Amino acid sequence: MSDKKIPYKIYLEENEMPTKWYNVRADMKNKPAPLLNPETLKPMTLEELSGVFCEELARQELDDTTAYIDIPQEIRKFYKMYRPSPLVRAYCLEEKLDTPAKIYYKFEGNNTSGSHKLNSAIAQAYYAKEQGLKGVTTETGAGQWGTALSMACSYFGLDCKVYMVKVSYEQKPFRREVMRTYGASVTPSPSDTTQVGRKILAEHPGTSGSLGCAISEAVEAALGTEGYRYVLGSVLNQVLLHQSVIGLEAKAALDKYGIEPDIIIGCAGGGSNLGGLISPFMGEKLKGNKNYRIIAVEPASCPSLTRGRYAYDFCDTGKVCPLAKMYTLGSGFIPSANHAGGLRYHGMSSTLSQLYDDGLMEAVSVEQTSVFDAAVQFARVEGILPAPESSHAIRVAIDEALKCKETGEEKTIVFGLTGTGYFDMVAYQKYNDGNMQDYIPTDEDLKPGFASLPQIG
Amino acid sequence: MSDKKIPYKIYLEENEMPTKWYNVRADMKNKPAPLLNPETLKPMTLEELSGVFCEELARQELDDTTAYIDIPQEIRKFYKMYRPSPLVRAYCLEEKLDTPAKIYYKFEGNNTSGSHKLNSAIAQAYYAKEQGLKGVTTETGAGQWGTALSMACSYFGLDCKVYMVKVSYEQKPFRREVMRTYGASVTPSPSDTTQVGRKILAEHPGTSGSLGCAISEAVEAALGTEGYRYVLGSVLNQVLLHQSVIGLEAKAALDKYGIEPDIIIGCAGGGSNLGGLISPFMGEKLKGNKNYRIIAVEPASCPSLTRGRYAYDFCDTGKVCPLAKMYTLGSGFIPSANHAGGLRYHGMSSTLSQLYDDGLMEAVSVEQTSVFDAAVQFARVEGILPAPESSHAIRVAIDEALKCKETGEEKTIVFGLTGTGYFDMVAYQKYNDGNMQDYIPTDEDLKPGFASLPQIG
Repeated sequence: MSDKKIPYKIYLEENEMPTKWYNVRADMKNKPAPLLNPETLKPMTLEELSGVFCEELARQELDDTTAYIDIPQEIRKFYKMYRPSPLVRAYCLEEKLDTPAKIYYKFEGNNTSGSHKLNSAIAQAYYAKEQGLKGVTTETGAGQWGTALSMACSYFGLDCKVYMVKVSYEQKPFRREVMRTYGASVTPSPSDTTQVGRKILAEHPGTSGSLGCAISEAVEAALGTEGYRYVLGSVLNQVLLHQSVIGLEAKAALDKYGIEPDIIIGCAGGGSNLGGLISPFMGEKLKGNKNYRIIAVEPASCPSLTRGRYAYDFCDTGKVCPLAKMYTLGSGFIPSANHAGGLRYHGMSSTLSQLYDDGLMEAVSVEQTSVFDAAVQFARVEGILPAPESSHAIRVAIDEALKCKETGEEKTIVFGLTGTGYFDMVAYQKYNDGNMQDYIPTDEDLKPGFASLPQIG
Repeated sequence: MSDKKIPYKIYLEENEMPTKWYNVRADMKNKPAPLLNPETLKPMTLEELSGVFCEELARQELDDTTAYIDIPQEIRKFYKMYRPSPLVRAYCLEEKLDTPAKIYYKFEGNNTSGSHKLNSAIAQAYYAKEQGLKGVTTETGAGQWGTALSMACSYFGLDCKVYMVKVSYEQKPFRREVMRTYGASVTPSPSDTTQVGRKILAEHPGTSGSLGCAISEAVEAALGTEGYRYVLGSVLNQVLLHQSVIGLEAKAALDKYGIEPDIIIGCAGGGSNLGGLISPFMGEKLKGNKNYRIIAVEPASCPSLTRGRYAYDFCDTGKVCPLAKMYTLGSGFIPSANHAGGLRYHGMSSTLSQLYDDGLMEAVSVEQTSVFDAAVQFARVEGILPAPESSHAIRVAIDEALKCKETGEEKTIVFGLTGTGYFDMVAYQKYNDGNMQDYIPTDEDLKPGFASLPQIG
């Protein structure tokens, strides 16, 4: 079809919306390595996993053979509040860059949680409700996941306890208030409400917390409370499954207008957005139908794919969670102050790690100041104030579009714009004031993290 | 048509989008009273107005006969970034209220300015650019208008100087940063950068500012700088004209599916949103084709329509602006601390004032705590965190829906959801903590404002 018939923003009709999630693991020859029980070092069983997660979610976590899984009606009803998300042609950005590239972004920020996190939050809350639970516990870094889960729990009348990484809790008091507005309780982590929190506080009295530490606290809080389970907003296979709705919608929108992407770009922290965005495209690639370039973008300050090791590791600082095989900097790696709070996790989803290891996707790391350069450039022409996390993808989308300008190639670039930056104005202020600093860990800086890796397999 | 065919969110197609603004004044029998020159007390001429405003905007300000005015191509191009805005059926809210009423809201918050203000900002920036100006000055209360104008100026490469009411500047540092991110300079008002600011500071050293005061400063700054003009985000006829795009889209969306509204509700500060939302509906009412109930909602703490006087008044504290005939509490009225910063203006658009005086619309005032009750109820079921201003309309929409529950009437209610509350978390925190207070001025409290009214006509 010709460009002229393609709307500026592509919204799917209700009858074009996905009714099943896509489980990319079903089409992977090399399956992601299983989670291991940290005590027995044997693969986690459904029964073991069901002690931590809702049963249906534990089942989804282990299922690497079913390609399509029905999206329950109740979840699709909730989706209507904020889905479909638009696939937007970045005409103004293209014009500004004077590039022959065609740039599209899938914008997941048009909901109160401000990000794609709601896609998995609503699924996890739904299954918790179905199982008759009273509530769930979780951790949140940047606060987007916690907000999303608060919204989802409020919708289903579940209690929601959020452990928020202390540095974010302090930098983002308004995030906390959004969660409270949706009825959640929010505790800065590490806290003295859990054993693991007290231990970490004793060992590192001045710590500003980490995602790995908040996970440990949330898991402990769930295990210690009748009728509660733990839920996690990234890293896990189940989360990538729920997030596949992003990629499915994006692919349906592109297919509808006969648009063929050449490059697909997503920011990568634990992998929830990237995994969701690329899943159906990766599926085509795995089947040999297409040969997209797929690029994961991570911060230079927390470079798990580009500088990490592919090994079994602890998912959390307290080492209470199952072990996962992933590209990791080690659970002992302490990321520097980096405003993209959602990209500060030491490891990467097992599924994405395997795909990366198999050479099916690329990874690049970018520095913070250049990320904010891209964010502001994008904001000024496209009218959306992007989250710092999302802006990692913008940076590389712009870089690729500028390469096209040099070569004259009319490539089609699709990137994931995961969310908005309304709660990141402290970071923007630093940038506006010229006080933003970049940080790239030296090889020496990475040593303690690698030393913390367990010696397995 | 049956309900089933109506999408949950109605988005117009690109070819269904308005190409002309609707000027409701053209169809009014009793025209709004003209602006008066504060020195001669004669109607402002085009020449006089053009000293303050861009020439084309001055022309629009005076035009009360042309019903439809072309929306320039450049503005329609910018609209594509964030328009059409969705008309959403509030199914979840209806279910929660257990009401037979059908509730729709026109949601204007899906852009980075977070509100409908962008509709007029882009128009005013466009005409400033067309006239070859270097920049514009303005005031902002809640910060939504300033943000919108910053975005619009950034798009057209204009300089933008914003005078921000001091209380908002302090309560909303992140708003300031969004404006700076878009390249604007932001000064807390009253400031020592203008004569009028210095005068007000001398008279009221501890003042936290007001919209009327910030307007005076912005006007003075424009008049004193070569190549600058002043722009205003509400109250003026031109603003209502630009904002008519809200109502035109809403009406087109309703007409497309054969939906007949019974009640149309909007929050009212200076009148920009309400005027824009209701214009085309009021047009039908003026022509005798329809008989909608139209309800303006204002805060009990700043009740210009419900308790004000219909009289000529100063638009600004410094009395440098033209005089406008409006429902007003007097420019000397100092509103109490009220979190709906956008609804703290002492007067009301001349057009809306005339329509109200002619009995063509109703007005109600609501108290803050009940507004936040409605805001949180809405947020939890509809998934959008509303701005406090917008929540005034939610309050009355819910009240009307609950009346339908009592009577069993299946009325169709449409309300304007002007924006999001991401920068209003200080207010939400007060509410969450149970520390929110209501304030209704006594008749005694209103006296100083009325005493400040000029004795004209």
